[in-house]
Amino acid sequence: MSELIFNALPLTEAERAQFKAAAPGVEQRFLPLMDNSGLTVPLSDPTLVAGTTVVLGSLPADVLSASPTLKWLQTWSAGVDVYLKPGSLPDGAMLTSAVGAYGPSVAEHLFACLLALMKRLPQYRDQQRGHCWADLGTVKTLAGATVLAVGAGDIGQRFSALCQTMGAHTVGLKRTVCPPPAGLDEVHSLDELDQWLPKADVVVLALPQTPATIHIMDQRRLDLMKDDAILLNGGRGSAIDPQALAETLRVGRLWGAALDVTEPEPLPADSPLWDIDNLILTPHVAGGLHLEGTRERIVAIALENLKHYLAGEPLKNRMK
Amino acid sequence: MSELIFNALPLTEAERAQFKAAAPGVEQRFLPLMDNSGLTVPLSDPTLVAGTTVVLGSLPADVLSASPTLKWLQTWSAGVDVYLKPGSLPDGAMLTSAVGAYGPSVAEHLFACLLALMKRLPQYRDQQRGHCWADLGTVKTLAGATVLAVGAGDIGQRFSALCQTMGAHTVGLKRTVCPPPAGLDEVHSLDELDQWLPKADVVVLALPQTPATIHIMDQRRLDLMKDDAILLNGGRGSAIDPQALAETLRVGRLWGAALDVTEPEPLPADSPLWDIDNLILTPHVAGGLHLEGTRERIVAIALENLKHYLAGEPLKNRMK
Repeated sequence: MSELIFNALPLTEAERAQFKAAAPGVEQRFLPLMDNSGLTVPLSDPTLVAGTTVVLGSLPADVLSASPTLKWLQTWSAGVDVYLKPGSLPDGAMLTSAVGAYGPSVAEHLFACLLALMKRLPQYRDQQRGHCWADLGTVKTLAGATVLAVGAGDIGQRFSALCQTMGAHTVGLKRTVCPPPAGLDEVHSLDELDQWLPKADVVVLALPQTPATIHIMDQRRLDLMKDDAILLNGGRGSAIDPQALAETLRVGRLWGAALDVTEPEPLPADSPLWDIDNLILTPHVAGGLHLEGTRERIVAIALENLKHYLAGEPLKNRMK
Repeated sequence: MSELIFNALPLTEAERAQFKAAAPGVEQRFLPLMDNSGLTVPLSDPTLVAGTTVVLGSLPADVLSASPTLKWLQTWSAGVDVYLKPGSLPDGAMLTSAVGAYGPSVAEHLFACLLALMKRLPQYRDQQRGHCWADLGTVKTLAGATVLAVGAGDIGQRFSALCQTMGAHTVGLKRTVCPPPAGLDEVHSLDELDQWLPKADVVVLALPQTPATIHIMDQRRLDLMKDDAILLNGGRGSAIDPQALAETLRVGRLWGAALDVTEPEPLPADSPLWDIDNLILTPHVAGGLHLEGTRERIVAIALENLKHYLAGEPLKNRMK
């Protein structure tokens, strides 16, 4: 069967030429060139991908499941849980992600939230809105703090590295223990989560969504955290039981928390989380294409994988 | 004349013993030991310091000017402009500051404000208050940014060092040019301010208050800044013309600004600055005793200087 590539990545003209050059003699359909926002039109018409063997870009799962000829999907997202559900992709289709492209963006966002919480900036913002000039007391620093990265992949490592430069001791928990990479002082098994939670001043969740990570931070584990610890979530909203977190903060436990992802999304308008003073909520914007350089990294991963695919070589960031 | 030391520093019992041991045979009056907040009672009774030759701690200037026997004041503040005004101290009295003690605290606060602005956290906070889940668009990073520290002393250097770890190029402007210290890639004369303002993505003011620094950022200089630059002030509020800054932000110039110091303080309730979306206002809390370690550094400077003073040696942080 000959290849038919549907390239739904947001590309510049020069990048499109690179993709054409990487697949000589292969039919490759492109979307219109990206507009100034870097985004392309949403795609929900199944006929768009009929007969394609390769899709580059994150099309809706129901569009892809209707394409039995699909052999490989390269997403532009880092998380791929939606494509791992049974029936989302044709049997035998390969799945690769853009993990690695979003690390700088998400890590910086979480780091900004952490420092804002440590310096009480959300509470000072609320005061500012009331034209109130009042000292809210002592603040925190990363110097000497223990940072626990639950999920120590690209995002967890980069976030930890930022904390390390300000004097933190960084501990990563992974499914597969490895020698500590840059940014981490120690790496341990995710199975040791219960032992590490009481030692951490900062807990950052950067986990993919799997059956094992859903509500991994339930009431019992939140209760294991220090009274004045800070909890951050930049992975998937499902990692935290939202009722348990709201209750924990309501009774005055934890210094604060920051969620860029919630369960569900968007966060319902009647969620108790919105009105908690020491909680920062952002609407899943840490990643995406919010930071310059991210799109370029995604495109580079896809282009490299396309070359591997056509050469019959193993793909990078293989998830399935 | 025999020495009489008035020690108004907030001390632990162990620290008080160190000060006693440093001045054997010299009368030294102490305040009550510090309470849990680290702060002591305010002092405004001139009879408290009658006959003293040395004051350790920042007493009100009118109290000190009424003490003709004073030979040396060691402040617990970094800025000493209030004591440099004519008549604030007896003629010939020496003045030393606690410059260096606040650097980590102020630099971290400014850094937290900078990252919050870059990631639009103040605006997301406002949305959160309205239970609104909406993407506010692209954000900024320090990677590749040029940071201009106007005033490159302890605070300017430490702030620059933090920016450097996230990929910024850092330029310090000083009255006296020196080889670049840690944290700064370049050091130039403060006289070159007008040339550097158009090149900076971030401008941080960390200047003492002197006749030359009052309204150093006036409308003309604000107009020299890039349209999407960020302005931070962690020195003295008088460095910025507040009306000019409000006007600059009102017309949509600058990505944002953060002020921990204002002119005047407290900021009047009817100031236009309170209600600007992309402006962070905090009530002069970056320094003070808000961060663990600051008080200890102040005490260490004062103790070291007391030993120098009694030995007839030159004092550290001499301002007059």
